[in-house]
Amino acid sequence: ALIALLPGDGIGPEVITQARRVLDALDLDLTYEEVPVGGVAYHTLGHPLPESTLDVARRADALLFGAVGDPTCDNLERSLRPEQAILGLRKHLGLFSNLRPATLFEGLEDASALKPEVARQIDLVIVRELNGDVYFGEKGRRVRPDGAREGYDIMSYDEHEVRRIARVGFETARKRRGQLCSVDKANVLETSQLWRDVVIEVAADYPDVTLSHMYVDNAAMQLVRNPGQFDVIVTGNLFGDILSDQASMCAGSIGMLPSASLDDAGKGLYEPIHGSAPDIAGQGKANPCAAILSAALMLRHSLGQAAAADRIEAAVARAIRDGARTADLGGTMTTSAMGDAVLGVL
Amino acid sequence: ALIALLPGDGIGPEVITQARRVLDALDLDLTYEEVPVGGVAYHTLGHPLPESTLDVARRADALLFGAVGDPTCDNLERSLRPEQAILGLRKHLGLFSNLRPATLFEGLEDASALKPEVARQIDLVIVRELNGDVYFGEKGRRVRPDGAREGYDIMSYDEHEVRRIARVGFETARKRRGQLCSVDKANVLETSQLWRDVVIEVAADYPDVTLSHMYVDNAAMQLVRNPGQFDVIVTGNLFGDILSDQASMCAGSIGMLPSASLDDAGKGLYEPIHGSAPDIAGQGKANPCAAILSAALMLRHSLGQAAAADRIEAAVARAIRDGARTADLGGTMTTSAMGDAVLGVL
Ligand SMILES: CC(C)[C@H](C(=O)O)[C@@H](O)C(=O)O
Ligand SMILES: CC(C)[C@H](C(=O)O)[C@@H](O)C(=O)O
Repeated sequence: ALIALLPGDGIGPEVITQARRVLDALDLDLTYEEVPVGGVAYHTLGHPLPESTLDVARRADALLFGAVGDPTCDNLERSLRPEQAILGLRKHLGLFSNLRPATLFEGLEDASALKPEVARQIDLVIVRELNGDVYFGEKGRRVRPDGAREGYDIMSYDEHEVRRIARVGFETARKRRGQLCSVDKANVLETSQLWRDVVIEVAADYPDVTLSHMYVDNAAMQLVRNPGQFDVIVTGNLFGDILSDQASMCAGSIGMLPSASLDDAGKGLYEPIHGSAPDIAGQGKANPCAAILSAALMLRHSLGQAAAADRIEAAVARAIRDGARTADLGGTMTTSAMGDAVLGVL
Repeated sequence: ALIALLPGDGIGPEVITQARRVLDALDLDLTYEEVPVGGVAYHTLGHPLPESTLDVARRADALLFGAVGDPTCDNLERSLRPEQAILGLRKHLGLFSNLRPATLFEGLEDASALKPEVARQIDLVIVRELNGDVYFGEKGRRVRPDGAREGYDIMSYDEHEVRRIARVGFETARKRRGQLCSVDKANVLETSQLWRDVVIEVAADYPDVTLSHMYVDNAAMQLVRNPGQFDVIVTGNLFGDILSDQASMCAGSIGMLPSASLDDAGKGLYEPIHGSAPDIAGQGKANPCAAILSAALMLRHSLGQAAAADRIEAAVARAIRDGARTADLGGTMTTSAMGDAVLGVL
């Protein structure tokens, strides 16, 4: 299988190097093409998502992505900023479904701001829609008749978009504890009311899954109060952005958590949930576990290699249990030393 | 001064009764008119915000509000649901600025899901815009050419709306520790980009306040990781809805926290941040502290009675320190016993 490697900006290259080492150690039949993306692509090729990168991404069976984000690009017009690369990849490749598991690794109770007895209960997956919502609706600036500047963004979902992500939510819940919580703001938003109506329609095909609904403000409270109550959460692009970052932090370091963004044929982009962390880039301080675990998700979801994925995940869990700690976890290990620790277990 | 009392649904009447007792004990020159709102208004007068209620609200100097929300109204069309009453009051009365302080009361470390050393640092105010954003833009359902149902909501802000709430944010920060964090999603939304541009313009008038910017997904993480880093957060209606509920929960029980919604002349609506809690309504289990503290905010912000407000707040803090606990705080006190405890200190 062909893997597109997109290390990107900041700590992206460092963590992807370690993920690659782990993949290499498993002796799978994989080939790689590495291409620039984000700020580094803008600086070398004039665009955060160059055609040449998109070509490789289209041809690849799966994409392993580091991070994008580069402060030197802050004043560029929106379409040239690094973040547009990830939004563009999601849209061009039809990666509509984002899976974000959040669990607390044994031994990392101290890394979470939550009380250990609360944090230990966290074992959830957020299923976030990635191709619609206020992210991709018409947006712009206008000057009103009275001369005032105004910014606007249209939020919307149609029933097809909701149905396909709802199915992913129900399927994910079915393979876990059978509890799906759909998060919306139906008491205020028409987009949410349609969302809720369609999710209820889809529920008819999943009698074995228990469906509940929660307003997003309440969900943000409940994720702090008692995150253990959730099995699978399905939600739109904007609410998913907020809640999945919140849930990751509840589980401790965001240096530990991977994500998968999938199309409807199993092709996917895999990336750590952390960003490019320019403040520590190039210093060997970044935690490569999220990238390594993203490689595991890739093996499982896009390459049919569930056993290899299990091995990687077990190795990371074991290394952590044995005390391996990068700076974000309160330790002093370098990025490559953490890679060594995982490889040592493997 | 004339106070409009709007007890509303669920536990609203119980907690407002206690707030009223506390106000009465202070011998202030206040008169009250009590009017129905929410589900109870719908059931008696056919509308969640009847004209007669709105009239009193308009005439009053300040509004003390319990809660709205009534499960028997769940299947009504949107415009008749209880929540529309609070949205209508905010809009009709021009209550554009919502202040939500969040602090951990001494003795309530156990009530927070956060580690005590993290929770104890919380001392922040969220300033949320209440009259614009995707809450009040055009919204609806439509059927697309291919027959698919679609829901949409227009998010927007104009520069006047941003400027006036930004000023409230800066003024609030100036009276506290001088740190203002503006939360948006400017990497994706044009509405947010305008928001950020205007906040930066307003900052020129407040050289004594340190302004920072944070994306909403990061803010949701940081409120868990290290809420003590925030002094004042200013944000739009939707992000404010989510983050303020999250922040309250970080601080422990939502039974303890009040809010103020103000117009530009100091008139305000004061309400607990908790909802109508239909599951415990009428059982004397509700914590009246948030309502009592809302009355204190009313005295301070709308009635120029800062000393009386201080007295109430000190009395609540003292009662809690002395061990007064309703069920939400892990105790067994009834609603009126908690009222007695506060009155006892006063
Ligand atoms: C970088 C940004 C555009 C992106 C998003 O908002 O989707 C990020 O926050 C994420 O969650 O992957
Ligand atoms: C009831 C609802 C419409 C309201 C809101 O979303 O503003 C509530 O959540 C709040 O925060 O006061």
